[in-house]
Amino acid sequence: LSFKITILGSSSATISKDRGHSSHLVQLENIHLLIDCGEATQIQLKKFGFKASKLSHIYISHLHGDHYLGLIGLLLSLNLHKRKEPINLYAPPELMDILVVNFKFSDSKFNFPINFFATNNQSFTCITDEKKFLVYSFPLKHRIHCTGFLIKEKSKPRKLIAEKVKNLPPNYLKMLKQGLDIIDKNGNVIIKNEDVTYPVNQPKAYAYCSDTIFYPEICQYIKGVDLLYHEATFLEEHKDRANETYHCTAKQAATIAKQAGVKKLVIGHFSPRYKDTNRFIQEASSIFEHTYIANDGDTYVL
Amino acid sequence: LSFKITILGSSSATISKDRGHSSHLVQLENIHLLIDCGEATQIQLKKFGFKASKLSHIYISHLHGDHYLGLIGLLLSLNLHKRKEPINLYAPPELMDILVVNFKFSDSKFNFPINFFATNNQSFTCITDEKKFLVYSFPLKHRIHCTGFLIKEKSKPRKLIAEKVKNLPPNYLKMLKQGLDIIDKNGNVIIKNEDVTYPVNQPKAYAYCSDTIFYPEICQYIKGVDLLYHEATFLEEHKDRANETYHCTAKQAATIAKQAGVKKLVIGHFSPRYKDTNRFIQEASSIFEHTYIANDGDTYVL
Repeated sequence: LSFKITILGSSSATISKDRGHSSHLVQLENIHLLIDCGEATQIQLKKFGFKASKLSHIYISHLHGDHYLGLIGLLLSLNLHKRKEPINLYAPPELMDILVVNFKFSDSKFNFPINFFATNNQSFTCITDEKKFLVYSFPLKHRIHCTGFLIKEKSKPRKLIAEKVKNLPPNYLKMLKQGLDIIDKNGNVIIKNEDVTYPVNQPKAYAYCSDTIFYPEICQYIKGVDLLYHEATFLEEHKDRANETYHCTAKQAATIAKQAGVKKLVIGHFSPRYKDTNRFIQEASSIFEHTYIANDGDTYVL
Repeated sequence: LSFKITILGSSSATISKDRGHSSHLVQLENIHLLIDCGEATQIQLKKFGFKASKLSHIYISHLHGDHYLGLIGLLLSLNLHKRKEPINLYAPPELMDILVVNFKFSDSKFNFPINFFATNNQSFTCITDEKKFLVYSFPLKHRIHCTGFLIKEKSKPRKLIAEKVKNLPPNYLKMLKQGLDIIDKNGNVIIKNEDVTYPVNQPKAYAYCSDTIFYPEICQYIKGVDLLYHEATFLEEHKDRANETYHCTAKQAATIAKQAGVKKLVIGHFSPRYKDTNRFIQEASSIFEHTYIANDGDTYVL
């Protein structure tokens, strides 16, 4: 599976000349997903050469302006360009009220369905089940309802080890390919899957965690992902401020990456008080080596 | 009075690489007014070197996304930067519902007052009366409630012609300076103002008309202004489409400018179907010579 993540916006609530409000574009072969949609996301898409019309799924983490204020403009633009295909929209339930009031007063009539799925911030939940990938939401801990997202390639059927399965019946083979053990009526394992099969692929995964206070409970959901984006609004010298505002420091983001055993960490959502992002890298990489700074327009290929 | 207008965004609902959504910055000495606030207006302000913090008055013509979707982000940014001074906001009454629902779900608490004034689209109305200028709203004709705005320098007191007023009492002189005639008990003019005074300044004025169908009724409100911004979404070859969508052609905008006897016309809000703005100039200037194309970042000094 071709799996690419492009940072469309990497600032905190205060934009800068080089950083727009939060948004990531995820390309899974021809399926384009948008994670968060801060103001001017449609402009960033155009700037970096992407077509908004290719989006089919949009995920909104929470209802702070810098994470959703570009959504209404984006949906209106899609409509203006005669889109017919549905958009699947995953967001806190209150977003529906915001959409309704905006569309009512602008007297907007949509040519395409907006399939709205309300996220919950109580549990790890599979919210999208497509042919080749799954998307899960999970609770983050912020000032308001906020979720992270995990996008994970589906496992391909396991391959059978020919000499070890030659005398087994077809229904056993089917179960073994799906990764299941063969169990007798009493619940005893009679054939352990990993003894007679091997995996074809190591499913790729990417997790998005913004905005949140330091919240190690999320490590269980993002364990071992290829790429973790985690907010790092502050440096340790402003740890108290991070706590007060329900944000993280670079060190805390790196601690999450380390505890979750991820392969690569990208940090962003920097407070404008810091002029030099090198300090974020220094602080984070002392805990977790493979840390990168989110920059608008950067693409990560998994 | 120093009176400058900067085009922050000049596109129609479809943005382009060079044109953002509608917004004009009006600088009247140290007082900064914003007319319309499409998505990413706060980014455009930064790009062209202006400080959003200097804004004190914001005027929204109507509730189509390309004219107001940058407002919530702008207000949130002002709040984030600890603004204390009030913002005077003039807009269709329904905007209040939109603000309330957005601020409720983001749990936003404002450090500064937002003084909301609902515009009416029935009559020419003075909505702002400041020391040196006045702002009027007046009805445009669009698919939804929409108003134009006229920003006009106040007249300075007229100068008395010394030899003609030497024997008049002080209360007469005061009235004459204010531009009033002297009238007796029966309503007969006994001293005609213009016979004994002369004007000190020719008050400067700028009018903003977007979005609207061809609507010559507005000429009475914008008569003789130094600068008229009028939308010209289409060319005459798509006049039917202009009518259907309640927009204007370049020729129609020029006809308004001519009928109203304005000094200069700036046209914008171009449909993306036209690649070359020269065609707009050609069409408009055949009717009204002093026509200019709105370009993001351009400043007009009155």
